[in-house]
Amino acid sequence: MSSPHLNLIETFPNPHPNREYEIEHTCPEFTSVCPITGQPDFATITVHYVPGATCIELKSLKLYLWAFRNEGHFYEDVTNLILDDLVAAMDPLRIEVRGVFNVRGGISSTIRAAHSRDS
Amino acid sequence: MSSPHLNLIETFPNPHPNREYEIEHTCPEFTSVCPITGQPDFATITVHYVPGATCIELKSLKLYLWAFRNEGHFYEDVTNLILDDLVAAMDPLRIEVRGVFNVRGGISSTIRAAHSRDS
Amino acid sequence: MSSPHLNLIETFPNPHPNREYEIEHTCPEFTSVCPITGQPDFATITVHYVPGATCIELKSLKLYLWAFRNEGHFYEDVTNLILDDLVAAMDPLRIEVRGVFNVRGGISSTIRAAHSRDS
Amino acid sequence: MSSPHLNLIETFPNPHPNREYEIEHTCPEFTSVCPITGQPDFATITVHYVPGATCIELKSLKLYLWAFRNEGHFYEDVTNLILDDLVAAMDPLRIEVRGVFNVRGGISSTIRAAHSRDS
Amino acid sequence: MSSPHLNLIETFPNPHPNREYEIEHTCPEFTSVCPITGQPDFATITVHYVPGATCIELKSLKLYLWAFRNEGHFYEDVTNLILDDLVAAMDPLRIEVRGVFNVRGGISSTIRAAHSRDS
Amino acid sequence: MSSPHLNLIETFPNPHPNREYEIEHTCPEFTSVCPITGQPDFATITVHYVPGATCIELKSLKLYLWAFRNEGHFYEDVTNLILDDLVAAMDPLRIEVRGVFNVRGGISSTIRAAHSRDS
Amino acid sequence: MSSPHLNLIETFPNPHPNREYEIEHTCPEFTSVCPITGQPDFATITVHYVPGATCIELKSLKLYLWAFRNEGHFYEDVTNLILDDLVAAMDPLRIEVRGVFNVRGGISSTIRAAHSRDS
Amino acid sequence: MSSPHLNLIETFPNPHPNREYEIEHTCPEFTSVCPITGQPDFATITVHYVPGATCIELKSLKLYLWAFRNEGHFYEDVTNLILDDLVAAMDPLRIEVRGVFNVRGGISSTIRAAHSRDS
Amino acid sequence: MSSPHLNLIETFPNPHPNREYEIEHTCPEFTSVCPITGQPDFATITVHYVPGATCIELKSLKLYLWAFRNEGHFYEDVTNLILDDLVAAMDPLRIEVRGVFNVRGGISSTIRAAHSRDS
Amino acid sequence: MSSPHLNLIETFPNPHPNREYEIEHTCPEFTSVCPITGQPDFATITVHYVPGATCIELKSLKLYLWAFRNEGHFYEDVTNLILDDLVAAMDPLRIEVRGVFNVRGGISSTIRAAHSRDS
Repeated sequence: MSSPHLNLIETFPNPHPNREYEIEHTCPEFTSVCPITGQPDFATITVHYVPGATCIELKSLKLYLWAFRNEGHFYEDVTNLILDDLVAAMDPLRIEVRGVFNVRGGISSTIRAAHSRDS
Repeated sequence: MSSPHLNLIETFPNPHPNREYEIEHTCPEFTSVCPITGQPDFATITVHYVPGATCIELKSLKLYLWAFRNEGHFYEDVTNLILDDLVAAMDPLRIEVRGVFNVRGGISSTIRAAHSRDS
Repeated sequence: MSSPHLNLIETFPNPHPNREYEIEHTCPEFTSVCPITGQPDFATITVHYVPGATCIELKSLKLYLWAFRNEGHFYEDVTNLILDDLVAAMDPLRIEVRGVFNVRGGISSTIRAAHSRDS
Repeated sequence: MSSPHLNLIETFPNPHPNREYEIEHTCPEFTSVCPITGQPDFATITVHYVPGATCIELKSLKLYLWAFRNEGHFYEDVTNLILDDLVAAMDPLRIEVRGVFNVRGGISSTIRAAHSRDS
Repeated sequence: MSSPHLNLIETFPNPHPNREYEIEHTCPEFTSVCPITGQPDFATITVHYVPGATCIELKSLKLYLWAFRNEGHFYEDVTNLILDDLVAAMDPLRIEVRGVFNVRGGISSTIRAAHSRDS
Repeated sequence: MSSPHLNLIETFPNPHPNREYEIEHTCPEFTSVCPITGQPDFATITVHYVPGATCIELKSLKLYLWAFRNEGHFYEDVTNLILDDLVAAMDPLRIEVRGVFNVRGGISSTIRAAHSRDS
Repeated sequence: MSSPHLNLIETFPNPHPNREYEIEHTCPEFTSVCPITGQPDFATITVHYVPGATCIELKSLKLYLWAFRNEGHFYEDVTNLILDDLVAAMDPLRIEVRGVFNVRGGISSTIRAAHSRDS
Repeated sequence: MSSPHLNLIETFPNPHPNREYEIEHTCPEFTSVCPITGQPDFATITVHYVPGATCIELKSLKLYLWAFRNEGHFYEDVTNLILDDLVAAMDPLRIEVRGVFNVRGGISSTIRAAHSRDS
Repeated sequence: MSSPHLNLIETFPNPHPNREYEIEHTCPEFTSVCPITGQPDFATITVHYVPGATCIELKSLKLYLWAFRNEGHFYEDVTNLILDDLVAAMDPLRIEVRGVFNVRGGISSTIRAAHSRDS
Repeated sequence: MSSPHLNLIETFPNPHPNREYEIEHTCPEFTSVCPITGQPDFATITVHYVPGATCIELKSLKLYLWAFRNEGHFYEDVTNLILDDLVAAMDPLRIEVRGVFNVRGGISSTIRAAHSRDS
């Protein structure tokens, strides 16, 4: 699956393609809306990956995450959707997306999804 | 074993059933009663699992945990009982339930129980 | 005003009545129920006072706070009610009651009410 | 001044109008939009007040703060605007509104505005 | 080896003997006396185990740890002694005892001893 | 009032008697016994004072606080008793004794007592 | 005194000039150079003020603080210089500038300078 | 690749060449400039390695890291470049360089690159 | 009184003598020796002052504090001695010296001494 | 290699030689002198080991670490030297020595060296 925001993600050529190394971006300002109640949800989204031929351009990642602001998304779904989009946009060697969602009904939630070229 | 509250747990179809990913819900507001002294106990219950065909619906998890509020339960037993209920309700690939219980008699306690389809 | 639980509070004679000194008890395990939704609320209740002729007996304070467990109370009201009960039970020189309530709807709340013999 | 969201704030009668006491609500999930760049801003809004005849109803405060979500506001202005609305809605004895805004351009900002019936 | 306090440990039947799960009790109030200087020592004792047929009864663990209060014990020895007693009392599948001792002479110390049925 | 341990406190001449300055000693290893249940209590005792002609010798303070180890004392009483002993031993210009007692029955307690030559 | 960077500071009209309220900007990314050794210094600069007719425009504050990047400045001097510039640029009712400088030679330093229209 | 600053790195003979051991240097004061916007970036650079025949001289590491101060570098590139320089300068058995970059556009970033003689 | 190290303190002219402002230097690496046991003591020394005509030169403060390294000093005495030296060296408007000494015999100690031109 | 202080280390017979268990001593008060500049260095030294026939006597470890106080040592060298001395003194099954050195020139350093009978 991919989201309609996929085309917002820009990449640049990996400056050190001969070495496997790790990149992690953490955005504590992700917000979307509950598809059932219409109430805002808030999360910290972390993207951790080993680049293949390309890397995510940081400003485009910011714009991409903002695009979810007023859409309805379930926690489990949106975390996997972001993972799918990032895989489609840059085909990394390995990638993990984590969403740490704020307390709702006295319960906080974390979703963690990963992808690897090998698997 | 299963508790009389099992039927409170509602599930929804796993939106990404082809990928193994992790979900963690943390509820710092669990309370039950000591079966011997009748005194309230307080714990943080954490549910960490890899979903199979279904996921726990978050609001139903809240209502399920509230159902223990005025019942008598030992730490070791209630942690395993919650695990049994969640396994029965959604048959996850892997699941761990942790209960971190407040200080009683100068001692704090943590119980950690896990289940896997493979084992 | 006073609550029906007032009689649960026991006191003992202040062992140093000739000196003004401060006593603070903090209970992070207060829970009651929302009078509208029936959902549990959780708070840390702190009692800070300068004793007059008597002090609160600690075990009775615990039992007194437990008595609210399954009753419906608004934050603002219950904090003032506890203050009224403690004033009625021991007539301290000065007393402050603070209730720090867990996040509900993304908002946490603190209520702070005080009483002094002079005022 | 008052915002168009003023009418979202609901109040209930102060249950202890004869005693001056303090109420503080903290919402770490405030978000609005920069009026110049259109980029989202994030803040923790804290409302600290001594009630007069009425108190803020907590759920209405949540809805009121959400109403700013997609509007353009400067930090200094929106903090004062929220203060004006709350004064208009419940005429408290004393009130302070604080906005703690996330880092932008390497700088974080706090705005603190207060109102008192006496002044 | 076993201590003279071994008989203070009471057990109850493991309520879920068919599942390997973990129990951890942490007591930050352990104190004994230096066998050489007679000065008090203070430690946090943590007991982490996978139960066999029985579990430690929590109140008896408290009384057992108190029994060392006025005895002379070296750090290394008392940590192993507590492990030996717990193994003798309940024959767990696996168990670890940790003692984290307060600063003496500018140095803090941790002793960690473990036992497994397999080894 | 004074305790039987008063004579354990040793003093030395204040090396700067012409200047009012502050001295604070913090001992997180105070323990005594509950006079009712016989169970150990644990506290951090802090002594904060402005010396007069003499200062407390640090090692003697340690020995003095140890002397309470196996005696029965209520929180409110022992904090005031330590204050009385220190006033008797060195007649400071101003002094405050704080006892921060560990959780018992889910409640922690702080006692704070002060003395001044002027009052 | 004023620095050559004074003209970088832009202001905008205070949106609530009839109320005294507080604004605080914190920049943990200030760096300049030691005038003696030429080595970089690092500090967190905090500007706390009550606006008069104008407020500091946030982006211009960022550019203003960057302007010191490769200049030689002593801690005491640069903190006062920033204060002088901000007073000259916007004539606030009250203002305080704090510089918290990183460890050099095992010593960290804080400089705090304030200005008020009244004094 | 290597940077023009490679020659700033000085080494000294490993004093214990017969044992594999680990050395970690952490510099929270790294700053360079964004190659696109010209705005300063700030990072904590950590160098973790097992020395071969030589070790990095600490003062030269400081001077080497300062050399990037006014140059334009992307996060991913500069972290790998520092790794390349350190490998070229001292041929360690194993080495990892981590760059933890401050928040830009609401997102913080960490880059982690490693090298081993074996791989 | 003054120490033999007084002459190590160097000063420079206060660059902003017309404004009262605050300077604080914190050195967590102070060490001297117990005059009785010969054992090393460790402290964090903080110097907080409002300068008169001169300021302390930072490097000379470092050398001055090092000069106590192998001398015997009591906590109360050395804190006042440092204060006396700094007053003698630069005659500040107001100054406070704090020494926070590491745990000895289970007790940590803080000494705080101040001087003002007015008093 | 061994230091001239090796003979300061005293040992006592391992009280539980039939079980492999871990002992960790942490001393945050290590200080020596830079061999080049003569300036004091400060570190936290941690010794983690599995004892063979003997254990380190704690007081002798304190005296041993003090012996380096006024000697010139490089970080990398002194950490390995302490390891060598401890291996020579008690021939443990496994041992690791860590030195965490305070910030110098804006950089903090950690050295970690280990020894095992097997390797």
